[in-house]
Amino acid sequence: MTTVALAQLNLLVGDIAANARQVIDCAARLKGQADIIVFPELTLTGYPPEDLLLRPACDERVAAALRDIAAAARGITLVVGYPAMRDGVRYNVAGLLRDGVVELEYRKMRLPNYSVFDERRYFEPGAHAVVFEQNGVTFGLTVCEDIWFDQPVQRAAAAGAQVLLNLNASPFHQGKVREREAMVGDRARRFGVSVVYVNLVGGQDELVFDGGSFVVDDHGVIKHRAPVFASGETLVSFDGAQPRAGSIAALLGAEEEVYRALVCGTHDYVYKNGFSSVVLGLSGGIDSALTLAIAVDALGAESVEVVSMPSRYTADISNLDALAQARAQDVKHQSISIEPAFDAFLAMLAPTFAGADVDITEENIQARCRGIVLMAISNKRGHMLLTTGNKSEMSVGYATLYGDMAGGFAPLKDVPKTLVYRLARWRNRDGEIIPQRVIDRPPSAELRPDQKDSDSLPDYDLLDAVLALYVEQDKAVDDIVAAGYPRAEVERIARLVDRNEYKRRQAPPGVKITRRAYGRDRRYPIVNGFRLN
Amino acid sequence: MTTVALAQLNLLVGDIAANARQVIDCAARLKGQADIIVFPELTLTGYPPEDLLLRPACDERVAAALRDIAAAARGITLVVGYPAMRDGVRYNVAGLLRDGVVELEYRKMRLPNYSVFDERRYFEPGAHAVVFEQNGVTFGLTVCEDIWFDQPVQRAAAAGAQVLLNLNASPFHQGKVREREAMVGDRARRFGVSVVYVNLVGGQDELVFDGGSFVVDDHGVIKHRAPVFASGETLVSFDGAQPRAGSIAALLGAEEEVYRALVCGTHDYVYKNGFSSVVLGLSGGIDSALTLAIAVDALGAESVEVVSMPSRYTADISNLDALAQARAQDVKHQSISIEPAFDAFLAMLAPTFAGADVDITEENIQARCRGIVLMAISNKRGHMLLTTGNKSEMSVGYATLYGDMAGGFAPLKDVPKTLVYRLARWRNRDGEIIPQRVIDRPPSAELRPDQKDSDSLPDYDLLDAVLALYVEQDKAVDDIVAAGYPRAEVERIARLVDRNEYKRRQAPPGVKITRRAYGRDRRYPIVNGFRLN
Repeated sequence: MTTVALAQLNLLVGDIAANARQVIDCAARLKGQADIIVFPELTLTGYPPEDLLLRPACDERVAAALRDIAAAARGITLVVGYPAMRDGVRYNVAGLLRDGVVELEYRKMRLPNYSVFDERRYFEPGAHAVVFEQNGVTFGLTVCEDIWFDQPVQRAAAAGAQVLLNLNASPFHQGKVREREAMVGDRARRFGVSVVYVNLVGGQDELVFDGGSFVVDDHGVIKHRAPVFASGETLVSFDGAQPRAGSIAALLGAEEEVYRALVCGTHDYVYKNGFSSVVLGLSGGIDSALTLAIAVDALGAESVEVVSMPSRYTADISNLDALAQARAQDVKHQSISIEPAFDAFLAMLAPTFAGADVDITEENIQARCRGIVLMAISNKRGHMLLTTGNKSEMSVGYATLYGDMAGGFAPLKDVPKTLVYRLARWRNRDGEIIPQRVIDRPPSAELRPDQKDSDSLPDYDLLDAVLALYVEQDKAVDDIVAAGYPRAEVERIARLVDRNEYKRRQAPPGVKITRRAYGRDRRYPIVNGFRLN
Repeated sequence: MTTVALAQLNLLVGDIAANARQVIDCAARLKGQADIIVFPELTLTGYPPEDLLLRPACDERVAAALRDIAAAARGITLVVGYPAMRDGVRYNVAGLLRDGVVELEYRKMRLPNYSVFDERRYFEPGAHAVVFEQNGVTFGLTVCEDIWFDQPVQRAAAAGAQVLLNLNASPFHQGKVREREAMVGDRARRFGVSVVYVNLVGGQDELVFDGGSFVVDDHGVIKHRAPVFASGETLVSFDGAQPRAGSIAALLGAEEEVYRALVCGTHDYVYKNGFSSVVLGLSGGIDSALTLAIAVDALGAESVEVVSMPSRYTADISNLDALAQARAQDVKHQSISIEPAFDAFLAMLAPTFAGADVDITEENIQARCRGIVLMAISNKRGHMLLTTGNKSEMSVGYATLYGDMAGGFAPLKDVPKTLVYRLARWRNRDGEIIPQRVIDRPPSAELRPDQKDSDSLPDYDLLDAVLALYVEQDKAVDDIVAAGYPRAEVERIARLVDRNEYKRRQAPPGVKITRRAYGRDRRYPIVNGFRLN
């Protein structure tokens, strides 16, 4: 019997010494229980380390960490991921550490360079299978993307691998857990290998890694699944190359997996940046209500402060609902009217604007006064400011730069408005955290009298459907119209998406939860003459 | 005799139809004068088209444009760059259009995927030389990066090329013009080919292309050089494969080339985004003074509006110097005190901040009040707001998010403070545009009484020297100390650079003029545990 441990760790990008300590501590803890521990891709640097890889000091630290880890690899086999310069070329490596030495190194063959990935910027591909024997079983090594292609798996199998160890840093998006398992199961069956799939967990800037490590047998049947969004090690025993049945965590529903991704991503972004508390503006609307729920679930009520900032256009009901939420969530709440500052700016600008019509300018001043108040509280108290905008708004620019877009992190940045509603309803499943009235009221920015989002934007069902086609699937306007959407609305939406790239470029990061998020995932020029038709 | 035209065009990314019209117009204009016209890399999409390449409509439009251009290629040979899907694979192509058809296509062999480049995200490399005969001379095709490596040139020469046509989209940085010519000259000599190097001109988001197209003979001697930062076609005649001597534009000095890059980048960013005028805050300091000079040189005085925004901490001399500059540059000027808004915020926040010390919070409020005033004028009048911060400040975070960092474009973003001074002195060469006192005064943010930059920052000579080593050359702290800089200062600077990635991520774009700019050129994680030592 061979026992393999899946070390689903939450690592800190760049902190090579701390990540190495996690490996060494894990080895010490599991010695005597496990024969082999498998760690995530690029264990030592975390993922993605980006241009830290270009610092010569990075290579030196990885080399030093490897010596320490090798010394700990006695009586237990460690499979660790790291970048390695070999003959002047950098590879993304899975190293086999055993008997006090780095015994073998596998070089990742398939280097993703699409979506959020830039691996060709840093690495050259490997070409050779690497296998090793333990307890009479032949194990093969692969790294992440390798297993999405036949060739690396085929080469490992041809080299004799019976069990494939696959080190991953596979970011979350909706439905990704099922997608991965189906794909790995298929490849296991076709090549007749069991697969140990170990994934990173935790948030890193725009990305969140869900963990969800698993083991399939050579028929592609799931024999073990670790819980998602939780770090820890689980053990799976093999009889020869056949995994025994282990614990199988339940898959999450569509809303729960997204919600937990948002909580994990927010928690890690705040803590990994050295903060421990947040502030946010609570308007009485659905976006700030959901953001508050996420913040409290991520950080605890005592670490969250909210501010209502009414103006002449704020409905009483908004103030009441904001207060009700703050009480329901037991967070510190205060109300600061923005009227004095708004009035001051109008007076300061009166000579300049004499004779000009009131327009979006005055709306933006209000949003920016709120931004100043929130940033002042953030600066004074050391809270990170969370912004509350959603993906639908980010897409069409229905947000004010330096106003409601001000902040360090935007939990809902990749969450379309229609999904915001679904998540709010889901979060209320065990008791009303978000007042039903907030969910039911027509959304409004409350920047002019009786304003509604629907004055400026299409219905959110239509907007989100068109955005999914235009942004996530790159469909042309004509194709979207052919799919049954009204041309005038489709053109308007596409034009707004294109024109507002400049705003998104100055937006804070948020958690990627869809197949295509804004940020590293979608690289559009600001200067852009691409026409709609 | 064969006459080759170098079409150093300013193209608009994404506007395939308009770029194709430029090609067709150029062909019509030069018919009878030139035998061959060479256009820049990715002529039809502009460069870099980024994820527009992933839109299926992009391929359709390129195909349609190619049909139109081919129809115009009668009695003249056109060498045009475009992306091309061939058998499901996308290549970066130089197409030879002659006698009404696309006769040949060369596929770029070397795809840069470092610095600002992401070509592996979109393209697969080609492997084969492509040559064609015209007037008994054999011409070979290459695209940009190809000529920085031996192999593509060697293959072209082996296929018989006597004259290499090289299509470029090579972005500017300091000294790049000389670097390119030396490299191309060397390769021409070693492989015994003449080279026609045609480069794009104009600004695209963070990049500016300087043009500076040239021809070298097979001894590596420059026979023609087009002016930099200007679009247009120039003709070079060949006797057999030997270029005749043509016009050779003078190389620019170190300050002038940077200044003209900034003017070109600012002009194009403003116009290509559909603006025709700008507003900026004029503080009486050197950064805003230089930004004003650039704006006026780029757009004309009638398209530039400046605003002074004094507070209780603004020295009289600052107001006077700002006014003097506005008059010297003949731009619309107004002064709006930020005191009423600053007072309003202090009063609004007084209950919240009761008992807390005055700190950076109050400084940031002032900077943000200025940001609101400027953005209001920008919104109301349709001016783009230029921000005035320099690279030294951007590096260490000596700037206020949503305050002085607010704006659409940051001309000095990649210009270190010491270079700001050099550029200001250079711009004054023919008469004082920037008052000497502005150049001579110690710099201050004027956000508290008697504040000087030197209270918070090292001397700028030291700061810029350390930044060049740490940011541009990726040196470790120990190496910088070993180079003779004081450890405490080096550590402090490096720490500030690392900690302020979050600010830079929300900064507007600016013109890359150094070997490594912030933005696409330097991809650092915000969450970053990489330690200094």
